[in-house]
Amino acid sequence: MPTLSNYTYDEITIGQTATYSKRVEERDVLLFAAVSGDVNPVHLDADFAAGTQFGERIAHGMLTGAIISAALAMELPGPGTVYLGQSLRFRLPVKIGDTVTVELEVVEKKDRRQFVTLQCRARNQHGDEVASGSADVMAPRDKLEIERPAAPRASVEPSASAG
Amino acid sequence: MPTLSNYTYDEITIGQTATYSKRVEERDVLLFAAVSGDVNPVHLDADFAAGTQFGERIAHGMLTGAIISAALAMELPGPGTVYLGQSLRFRLPVKIGDTVTVELEVVEKKDRRQFVTLQCRARNQHGDEVASGSADVMAPRDKLEIERPAAPRASVEPSASAG
Repeated sequence: MPTLSNYTYDEITIGQTATYSKRVEERDVLLFAAVSGDVNPVHLDADFAAGTQFGERIAHGMLTGAIISAALAMELPGPGTVYLGQSLRFRLPVKIGDTVTVELEVVEKKDRRQFVTLQCRARNQHGDEVASGSADVMAPRDKLEIERPAAPRASVEPSASAG
Repeated sequence: MPTLSNYTYDEITIGQTATYSKRVEERDVLLFAAVSGDVNPVHLDADFAAGTQFGERIAHGMLTGAIISAALAMELPGPGTVYLGQSLRFRLPVKIGDTVTVELEVVEKKDRRQFVTLQCRARNQHGDEVASGSADVMAPRDKLEIERPAAPRASVEPSASAG
């Protein structure tokens, strides 16, 4: 049975790394539009997007932010992490079908409040950096190893009125 | 017919403001878990969440980031905006049923590359600040007024194996 575990503050070391990958599918872009409310046609309408500087539909920038946040919550430090802050620079568009891989590296620990700073880089399948930034978290005090919850089952379809 | 329009760089003034609200429903938390891959039980499992410092299920922090990104993309500057960067401080948890209202204010314009910086504050229905930060965007050069696309139709249910 798959489990989900964390690194406690005391276990975390400067220079520690983790990675987390997600392929961005058509459905992810539709789901992100539904959950954020950002229904801009550059994300949803292929004909419109063809006329933009991007030439094709692109994922929402903050979808990469969501993937970075999942890397922190699922991998390093993992469950029990309290998210304090995030900076992001969006460097290249993510296109449908791209695989985004987040690389995390611990760069600072502040013992007094168990704060940890992690450098975050997101790359596409060609190795190009699509986003980067820095995350501030409060790391878990207690070790946790739990059954890994299955993802909610989502389905989505474009609105009939699109186009 | 509802339309979606933008403010071009030339139309944008320092001090200009906009707001954007979204009520965070159970389904939004499930959708965000599905799209990000963050299936931590503090978001999905009421029994688990009751034993945490939050006492109940909370929304993913970056769901508020997604709502802020939608405010920029839908309201100010609106369609045609290129997202360059975002900083975020997560100040209070967002709970299921909370209404998040994003307040944007233009604080800087850089003519050479049409960059605009906006201060971003997200508050809950009690007026408490849940997140704040700063967004850097490239504002649209061209005026756009288009039919507002309908949101994709999403449905989601918890995984049967949860709990």
